[in-house]
Amino acid sequence: MKRKLYLVGGYGRVIHWDWEKTRADPFCAPTKAWPWEDGTNSVAMVKTRMRAHFEFITKLGVERWCFHDRDIDRDIAPDGKTLVESNANLDEIIELAAELQKGTKILPLWGTTQLFMHPRYMHGAATSSELGAYAYAAAQVKKAVEVTHYLGGENLVFWDRRESYQTLLNTDMKRELDHLARFLQAIVVWKKKIGFNGTLLIEPKPQEPTKHQYDWDAATTLSFLQKYGFQCNHATLSSHSCHHELETARINGLLGNIDANTGWDTDQFLTNIGEATLIMLRVIRNEGLAPGGFNFDAKLRRESIDVTDMFIAPISGMDTLVRGLRNAAKMIEDGTLDELIRKRYESFDSEIGSQIEA
Amino acid sequence: MKRKLYLVGGYGRVIHWDWEKTRADPFCAPTKAWPWEDGTNSVAMVKTRMRAHFEFITKLGVERWCFHDRDIDRDIAPDGKTLVESNANLDEIIELAAELQKGTKILPLWGTTQLFMHPRYMHGAATSSELGAYAYAAAQVKKAVEVTHYLGGENLVFWDRRESYQTLLNTDMKRELDHLARFLQAIVVWKKKIGFNGTLLIEPKPQEPTKHQYDWDAATTLSFLQKYGFQCNHATLSSHSCHHELETARINGLLGNIDANTGWDTDQFLTNIGEATLIMLRVIRNEGLAPGGFNFDAKLRRESIDVTDMFIAPISGMDTLVRGLRNAAKMIEDGTLDELIRKRYESFDSEIGSQIEA
Amino acid sequence: MKRKLYLVGGYGRVIHWDWEKTRADPFCAPTKAWPWEDGTNSVAMVKTRMRAHFEFITKLGVERWCFHDRDIDRDIAPDGKTLVESNANLDEIIELAAELQKGTKILPLWGTTQLFMHPRYMHGAATSSELGAYAYAAAQVKKAVEVTHYLGGENLVFWDRRESYQTLLNTDMKRELDHLARFLQAIVVWKKKIGFNGTLLIEPKPQEPTKHQYDWDAATTLSFLQKYGFQCNHATLSSHSCHHELETARINGLLGNIDANTGWDTDQFLTNIGEATLIMLRVIRNEGLAPGGFNFDAKLRRESIDVTDMFIAPISGMDTLVRGLRNAAKMIEDGTLDELIRKRYESFDSEIGSQIEA
Amino acid sequence: MKRKLYLVGGYGRVIHWDWEKTRADPFCAPTKAWPWEDGTNSVAMVKTRMRAHFEFITKLGVERWCFHDRDIDRDIAPDGKTLVESNANLDEIIELAAELQKGTKILPLWGTTQLFMHPRYMHGAATSSELGAYAYAAAQVKKAVEVTHYLGGENLVFWDRRESYQTLLNTDMKRELDHLARFLQAIVVWKKKIGFNGTLLIEPKPQEPTKHQYDWDAATTLSFLQKYGFQCNHATLSSHSCHHELETARINGLLGNIDANTGWDTDQFLTNIGEATLIMLRVIRNEGLAPGGFNFDAKLRRESIDVTDMFIAPISGMDTLVRGLRNAAKMIEDGTLDELIRKRYESFDSEIGSQIEA
Repeated sequence: MKRKLYLVGGYGRVIHWDWEKTRADPFCAPTKAWPWEDGTNSVAMVKTRMRAHFEFITKLGVERWCFHDRDIDRDIAPDGKTLVESNANLDEIIELAAELQKGTKILPLWGTTQLFMHPRYMHGAATSSELGAYAYAAAQVKKAVEVTHYLGGENLVFWDRRESYQTLLNTDMKRELDHLARFLQAIVVWKKKIGFNGTLLIEPKPQEPTKHQYDWDAATTLSFLQKYGFQCNHATLSSHSCHHELETARINGLLGNIDANTGWDTDQFLTNIGEATLIMLRVIRNEGLAPGGFNFDAKLRRESIDVTDMFIAPISGMDTLVRGLRNAAKMIEDGTLDELIRKRYESFDSEIGSQIEA
Repeated sequence: MKRKLYLVGGYGRVIHWDWEKTRADPFCAPTKAWPWEDGTNSVAMVKTRMRAHFEFITKLGVERWCFHDRDIDRDIAPDGKTLVESNANLDEIIELAAELQKGTKILPLWGTTQLFMHPRYMHGAATSSELGAYAYAAAQVKKAVEVTHYLGGENLVFWDRRESYQTLLNTDMKRELDHLARFLQAIVVWKKKIGFNGTLLIEPKPQEPTKHQYDWDAATTLSFLQKYGFQCNHATLSSHSCHHELETARINGLLGNIDANTGWDTDQFLTNIGEATLIMLRVIRNEGLAPGGFNFDAKLRRESIDVTDMFIAPISGMDTLVRGLRNAAKMIEDGTLDELIRKRYESFDSEIGSQIEA
Repeated sequence: MKRKLYLVGGYGRVIHWDWEKTRADPFCAPTKAWPWEDGTNSVAMVKTRMRAHFEFITKLGVERWCFHDRDIDRDIAPDGKTLVESNANLDEIIELAAELQKGTKILPLWGTTQLFMHPRYMHGAATSSELGAYAYAAAQVKKAVEVTHYLGGENLVFWDRRESYQTLLNTDMKRELDHLARFLQAIVVWKKKIGFNGTLLIEPKPQEPTKHQYDWDAATTLSFLQKYGFQCNHATLSSHSCHHELETARINGLLGNIDANTGWDTDQFLTNIGEATLIMLRVIRNEGLAPGGFNFDAKLRRESIDVTDMFIAPISGMDTLVRGLRNAAKMIEDGTLDELIRKRYESFDSEIGSQIEA
Repeated sequence: MKRKLYLVGGYGRVIHWDWEKTRADPFCAPTKAWPWEDGTNSVAMVKTRMRAHFEFITKLGVERWCFHDRDIDRDIAPDGKTLVESNANLDEIIELAAELQKGTKILPLWGTTQLFMHPRYMHGAATSSELGAYAYAAAQVKKAVEVTHYLGGENLVFWDRRESYQTLLNTDMKRELDHLARFLQAIVVWKKKIGFNGTLLIEPKPQEPTKHQYDWDAATTLSFLQKYGFQCNHATLSSHSCHHELETARINGLLGNIDANTGWDTDQFLTNIGEATLIMLRVIRNEGLAPGGFNFDAKLRRESIDVTDMFIAPISGMDTLVRGLRNAAKMIEDGTLDELIRKRYESFDSEIGSQIEA
C-alpha cells in the first residue's frame, strides 16, 4: 500500500486506520465477537488489544497509528475512578506501545483526548458550563500532550465533539468561546514547556450530535483562531473529506490532516474514487500533508462480522485513495485543467489587471 | 390532561408516553442515574421498574401504556438465553403488569416486539436473509399477540426498524417483501385463532438506521398492503407526526395511531404548537384516532438528569397537543378555512363537474 | 454512441436528449445566443429550431426524440391565443417533423404535454381546483395523443409537474386525486379509440417546485394506480435516476423509461459512472427498457455558451451511461455478486423455507 | 405597525418590504397582472411603478425602503445599452424618488447593486474571471454609493449572489477572494471621498444558485473580513433569519440588518412566531438593529394574484415579527431564562473561574 503511494509521486504520507472495537449503532446491540476479546475492559484486556492492534497495522504495512487517551467504549486505556488511576492505566499501556514500536518504523500520527463520552462532559469540555469539567479536561489534555510526546507522536488533535451547544436559549456562546480560547492558549504554553514540537490540529465538525458544533467548518474555525490571535503558521486544521473544506484550509496555509471517512455519523470507509480524486488534487497542490496524514475514523458495518473484514475494509479505503491520487497526478501532469484555469483568468494578466491585483 | 382533551370536543383518546430507561447517544455514555435502578437488568430490577412505571403514568393521569416484549436496552422483560427462558421472563413481568392494572382504568394501547436490537436481527426479522431469524421473529410475535391479548391491549404495532436493506447490491428486495407479506398473513391467522380482536398497526419509517426501510411512508406501506391483498378495513397505519402522512392515511381510511415525537433519530417531545395544530386538524377530520391514540416514543435530552424532568417533558408534549387540538377545533368551528376550500373547488359543483366526478 | 451501446450486450435502446432552448436560472438572465435564433418565437422561428434539432440528433447518431406540445419557454409549437390556434401551430410543426423523419430511422420516443408553465395551470392541470383548467388540459392531452400517434411515437409521458399542492390547508387531496384518476381513465379510452398502442408513462417526481407532488416516487405512484384500478401490464412508470426507484418499479413490472439527468431542479447531465453502473444493473435485470428508453431532460450550465457545448454535454452523459452499462455487464458476467446473493438467502432454499415461500 | 413596534420597548427600527414585480418560478410563467403595468419596462413605466411603490409603503405606514440599481426583471431603473445610458435612466428615477420622499419621513434603508442577472456577471462580479465584468461592477457600485448618498440612504448592501463558484475544478479561489477584497477596499475609499457615512453591509448566503457562495454564513464572512484587515467597527453583516447566525454576528459586534424572509430560494414571508421570537431575542440583546433594520426580500406565491394580497402578505410578516418581539420582551422582562443561564455558568463565578476568564 505504502509502496503504491510513494510510487505515484511521493505525495501524501502513510495511511492510518483509527482502529476500533466493536461498536453498536443506535438501534442495535453489538454483533461482533473478535477472537481476542474476553468481554471485559481490564488493563490486561486492553494490553491484548494493543498487541492485536500492532499485529493488524503491521500486516497492513502501515507506519503510523492514532489514539484516544481514555477507553470508555474503545480507545487505549480503561477509565479509572480517579484522574490518578486513569493516568496510571494510561502509563501502563503507553509503556507497552513504546515497546511494540521499538525496532519498527511505527509512530503515532497523532494522539487525542476522549472528551465527550463521559457524563462529566455532557455540556462540553473546554466549553462546559461546569468549572469542574473544564479543569478535568485540562488535566486530560496536559497528560495527552506528555504521552504523545513520549511515544514520538507528531501531532495532537482536537476533535472534541461536545464543544457545542444544544440550544442557544440556555447558552452564553461568547463566554464559552472565550473559555475555549483560554484552554487552547494554556495547551500551547504547556506543549512548549515540555518541548513537544508536534502540531496542534483542530478537526472542524458541524454537529456530532448536538445542534451546533463550535468548529463547524474550516472557515468558522479559522475565524475563531483569528479572533483570539492564534499563530497558525502552517497547519492547524484537520479537515473533513470535502473538496471545498480542503481548498479553504489550503489557501489559508492550514491544511494538516485528513480524516478520510465518509457519511456523517455513519463513519464509512471512503470508496468513491471520484471524491478521492478531488481530495488528492488538493493534497498535491498542498505538496503533501505533512505534518499530518490520512486516517480513517471509520468502522465496519454492523453486518460485517468476519475478522478478515477488518482488513478488507481499510484496504478498500486505501486503494480508493491511491486510485484518487493516480487520477489527480494524471490530471496535473496532463496540464489541461491548469491551462484551462490559466486562460480563464487571462484578462487579469494585463496592466489594469495587475494594478487591481497589486 | 385527559380532562382537557375530553373538554375540547371529545376527539382523540388519551396520551401515552413510551416510557424509557436511560439511553446514551452515539457519542456519549448514559448520564442518568434514576433512584430506583440498581445497575442490573435482573427480573427483580425489571419488576421494580414496572412499578415505577405505573406510579409514573398514574401521576400523569394517563390511562394507556405501550410496551416492547424484550429488554435489551430498555423495555419490559430481560432477554433470556433461550426462547423458553425469555418467554418465562416475559410471563412473570406480564403477570405483575396485570396485577398493577387491576382496579385502574389503565390498559395497553398496544404491545409490540423488539425485533431489531439483537444481533440475530442484523439483517432484519421478517425480511432477514436467515431463515432462523425469520422463525425466531415469528415465535416472538406469536407470544406478543398472546400477552397483549391477555392484558386487554387494543392493538399490536409493527415498527420493526430493521425490515430494510443496507445496500441493494446484496439484496433480493422482491423475495424479502414476499417473506414480509407471508409473515403478516401468518400473524393475522394466529390473532383470529386466539380471539384477539385488536388492530394490527404498521408504523411507516424511512430509514432507521439503514439505507432504506420497507415501510418508508404511508403511500409505500399502502402500496405494499394492496399488492399482497391485505384487507385494510379501517385503520392499519401508525403514522409519523407529519401533516401529509396523516392526510394520506386518513383519505385511505388507514389512520390508526400517532407516534407524536419529533426530530428523526433524536426522539424529541413535540413542542411546536403550529405543527400540533396541523396534526389535530387531521385527527378531528378523522373523528378521532380509535382504535389507536397518541404515544410519545420520545426521550429526555442527555443533559436532563433530574427525576422531575421525566414529568416536565411529557407534560410539555401533552400540552402542545392540547393547544394544537384547541387551535384546530377553533379553526373548524370558525369555518373560514372550510368555506375557502368549498369555494376553491366550486367550479366542479356544476353539471359538467359532476359528470367528471361521477 | 449507439454502436457502443449495441456492442455491450444489446440491452437498452437508444439514448435521447430532451433538446432545450436557452434557459435562465432563478437569479439570472439567459446567456446563450444560438446562431439560428432570431429573438422571436414565431412559427417560422420554431420551424428553424426543429431543423436545427434534427441536424443535432443526426450528428449525435440518435434515433429517438421527445417533445412537449406547447412552447412557452421552449418546446415545439408556439402557444396561440386559443386552443384552435395552438393546435393549428402544433399541426404545422408536426408536419415538418414528419417530413424530417422521412427516410431516417428517427421516431419520437415519446410525446408529452406542457401542463405547468401557463398561468391557467397554476393550481395544477388534472388536479386543478378550476374546472376550466381541467377541461383545457384534457383537450391538450387528447391532441398530444393524436400527434404522437401520427408521428409514430412509442409512448406518451405524464410528468405534469403541477399535479401537486402548495399547502394542505386549502386543498381537498382526495377530490384532486379522484379527478386525476378520471383524467387518466379518459385518456386510456381515447388512446384505444384512435388506435394508439403506445404506452402511457408516468414520471414520479417529489416536488417541482411545489410542496408535494402527487407522483412523489415509484411506490406512491403505484399505490395510486392500484387504488383506482389501472391495469399496469408491463410498463407504466418513467423513473428518476435512482437505483431504488428503478428496482421498485422493476419488481412490480413497471419500469418503462429513464429520465437520466441528475441534480433535482438543476437538470445536469449524468457524469457519475458509479451511479450509472447501479442504474444499468437494474436495466439489464429488466431485460432492457422497451417500450421506453433513456432521455436527458438536462441542460447546459449557464456559463456554457459555445455551440459545441451542446454536443459535448450529451456525449459525456451518453458515455457515462455506456461505461455504466459495461461495468454492469461485467459484474453480471462475472457472477460474484449473484452468487453472493444466492448464498445469502440459502437458508430459505430448504424444506421449511419453501413452505414459507409457498 | 410602527406604533406597535415602538410600543414594545423601542427596539428595532421600522420594517420594510423589498417591493417586487411579478416573478415567475422555474416551472411557470408569471401569473400576476398588476393594474398599473403596461407590459413594458420603459422609463415611463418604471416611474409609474415608483409612484405605486410610494403609495404602497405609505399605506403600510412604513418609513424606509430599499432598492437595486438596475432593472432586469424588477428593481428601479431600466438597464441601458451602455453604462452612460443606464446611469442616466437611474438618475431620472432617483430624481423622482427624491421628490416623492420630500415632505415625508421616508428614506432608503439601503441601496444595493444588481450584479447577478446580467449575462456579463455569469461568473460573478468582483470575483469574475473576466476583468471587464470586474470593472463594470466597480462602476455600478460607485454610482450606487452616490445615489444612495443623494437620497439620504443609511446603508449600502452587498448581496451579490454570484460571488461564488460552480466547480472548484475551474476556479482559483484564492485569486477570486483577493479580487473581492480589493473591490471592497476601493468602495471604502470612494465612500469616504464623497462623504457617505452609511454602513457597508454584507449579506451572508450559502448558495444562490451556484454550488458555493463566498459569503456562506456569518463566520465565513467574518473570517474573510479579518483576513483582509477590514475594520468592522460595529455593524457590517446583514444576516439571514436564523437564530445562530444572528448570535454569531452579535457577539462579534457585526449585526446590522435582517432580511426577514424564510425558505431558501422560495422567499416566503416569515409567519412562524416561534422563529420570530428567537430572532427578536437576539435583536433586543443587540439593543436594536441600527444602522440597519428589517426588510422582506419576499414575494407572493404564484397563486396569489389579487392586489390586496400585496398588503396582506407583508402585514402578516410584520405582525409575526411584532408578536415575536412581544414574546421576546416578555421572556426578558420575566428574567427566568437569564437567571437560568446565570446559574448554569455559576461555577465560573469563583476565584479559580475568574483566573481562567482573566
